[in-house]
Amino acid sequence: MSRVVKLAVIPGDGIGPEVVAEAEKVLDAVTASSDVTFDKTRFSLGAARYLETGDTLTDDDLKAISDHDAILLGAVGGTPGDPRLKDANIERGLLLKLRFMLDHYVNLRPSKLFAGAAGPLSDPGDIDFVVVREGTEGPYVGNGGAIRKGTPHEVANETSVNTAFGVERVVRYAFDLAERRSKKVTLVHKTNVLVHAGAIWQRIVNEVSAEHPDVAVDYLHVDAATIFLVTDPSRFDVIVTDNLFGDILTDLAGAVTGGIGLAASGNINPDGAFPSMFEPVHGSAPDIAGQQKADPTAAILSVALLLDHLGLTGEAARVSAAVESDIASRTGARSTAEVGSAITALL
Amino acid sequence: MSRVVKLAVIPGDGIGPEVVAEAEKVLDAVTASSDVTFDKTRFSLGAARYLETGDTLTDDDLKAISDHDAILLGAVGGTPGDPRLKDANIERGLLLKLRFMLDHYVNLRPSKLFAGAAGPLSDPGDIDFVVVREGTEGPYVGNGGAIRKGTPHEVANETSVNTAFGVERVVRYAFDLAERRSKKVTLVHKTNVLVHAGAIWQRIVNEVSAEHPDVAVDYLHVDAATIFLVTDPSRFDVIVTDNLFGDILTDLAGAVTGGIGLAASGNINPDGAFPSMFEPVHGSAPDIAGQQKADPTAAILSVALLLDHLGLTGEAARVSAAVESDIASRTGARSTAEVGSAITALL
Ligand SMILES: CC(C)[C@H](C(=O)O)[C@@H](O)C(=O)O
Ligand SMILES: CC(C)[C@H](C(=O)O)[C@@H](O)C(=O)O
Repeated sequence: MSRVVKLAVIPGDGIGPEVVAEAEKVLDAVTASSDVTFDKTRFSLGAARYLETGDTLTDDDLKAISDHDAILLGAVGGTPGDPRLKDANIERGLLLKLRFMLDHYVNLRPSKLFAGAAGPLSDPGDIDFVVVREGTEGPYVGNGGAIRKGTPHEVANETSVNTAFGVERVVRYAFDLAERRSKKVTLVHKTNVLVHAGAIWQRIVNEVSAEHPDVAVDYLHVDAATIFLVTDPSRFDVIVTDNLFGDILTDLAGAVTGGIGLAASGNINPDGAFPSMFEPVHGSAPDIAGQQKADPTAAILSVALLLDHLGLTGEAARVSAAVESDIASRTGARSTAEVGSAITALL
Repeated sequence: MSRVVKLAVIPGDGIGPEVVAEAEKVLDAVTASSDVTFDKTRFSLGAARYLETGDTLTDDDLKAISDHDAILLGAVGGTPGDPRLKDANIERGLLLKLRFMLDHYVNLRPSKLFAGAAGPLSDPGDIDFVVVREGTEGPYVGNGGAIRKGTPHEVANETSVNTAFGVERVVRYAFDLAERRSKKVTLVHKTNVLVHAGAIWQRIVNEVSAEHPDVAVDYLHVDAATIFLVTDPSRFDVIVTDNLFGDILTDLAGAVTGGIGLAASGNINPDGAFPSMFEPVHGSAPDIAGQQKADPTAAILSVALLLDHLGLTGEAARVSAAVESDIASRTGARSTAEVGSAITALL
């Protein structure tokens, strides 16, 4: 009766391998005595692989990764300004390609201020919300171009594409999530300026909201939302927003809840047609790579999201609880491995 | 030898008229003994005017306003959700129309943490930077549309348009400003995702930067910039960014420096072909309108920017100094008029 989960592991660049090692340590420990086995395949992808082979993500890579139940990713991206990476866009060619090709239409990013975590706000209140960021549309579609490039007459365009199909499925996810939480959904957009994209989001939120009379609905312009994130973050429960606004809001939310070293995320395909991918919100931070300075907590909390997604809710809760008690008792500086071991010991 | 400045005053909606009354009180007082006379024309524009006449901004309005040396605006916009305003977009049809038609390509938004101003950060440091937000391009151009509107097959697009002409002139302004300040320019964009729009901004910043070897140049993705705005805002001197990112960053910056009630802005046409327009960053806040609850400081600081723009630097400095000492000595709650009178008394 034992269950085997095929897990693709992409440690990536910079601090990616270090934080993933700790995430795997926790994953192994929490599943050691359960009847679930994780059958892991490592994929060497990222800037290092590109520099070696010229490949970012081949069709074969994608096919092999798709043949898994879930993906754990560390971080990808080389040193900013590295001239050898000038023509590579590791973010678009690898990270965003995975999100788009694997139809990760829900980018789930919880924000919680754990007791003991020191954020920049003097009076943060009780922060516990989730951003449901659309993952496959909006300004991220790569629908742009330039004419007269490099000349004084250049015109460069980027088009945000928003479909009723794409907006509705993520809005439904947000309302379903709110039903299991504090029953409040806040749409964040910029409907007064981006009138067409804004209108489709507002219309669909109104429509789906009618099916959830018990869920309160709110709307904020993205600029106002950033104000509330620093002045009254406890007002939020579930935020639903587009790809770009979600990117911005979740970095800010990470900072407000004690730093991007604690912020986890799931790139989810709720239909199960493709494997979902779990990764810390932070990047590869090449400046501190290999020094055991990175906080693996975001990667470890991403494992909790992964376990939860796989229906291993007991294991997920044990990881979250271990992280929570580790954060509550943090004192001096610890190495990446020390944090991972401390959390493992607390499981 | 006396100089006459033709000033268009647009009090607008909500708290607009209240804060503009105080701004005018300060303007009148600070110019009372100088040889400059402000010849004011009031324009009744905004949601109230729209509800009365159906007009937002007619060609005649625009022509009459253009025939002034500068504009002072309070705030425009009706009650959110007012069904009678459903088909009006006061923001696009009035505020953005003014910015675009009067070619306000520099949206200048200083952020300074005044002594005594209470922001949400526990350790804000010394905050003193200026956001130079592009005002006539980017995702704000209104270049969008939808097909199959209102159906499950709707597709809604918005196109961000960025021209070398438009980017270069605002980037030049930012570098010139940095030369007179702490000689640091930070470009904020999302070059790793919005590759075409990002590339034109990065290229032009690189080119203009070569002409300013003494100005340090930095780049931040917009998501990372929001993190630094709450963890290390004193690192910034001049931020140059596009219309949408500038909108988001300046609301957050306003919150971080003690609230949007203190944030002033100038919509500037540096060529002098059209009158520049000065306005608080905040909106019309219909919920507290007519109650003398709004802080007129942002409107008053907008008068300082207006005076500065007109070359009346001594008068501008007196207004800023009066605001600074008023903020330093704030205690209990005061009415809008009391704040205006207190600042006037301190001139
Ligand atoms: C690296 C980048 C492409 C990515 C994004 O913009 O989505 C990152 O910022 C994130 O939030 O996961
Ligand atoms: C009202 C709105 C159109 C405007 C903008 O987005 O520019 C406002 O938020 C601002 O920052 O002045």
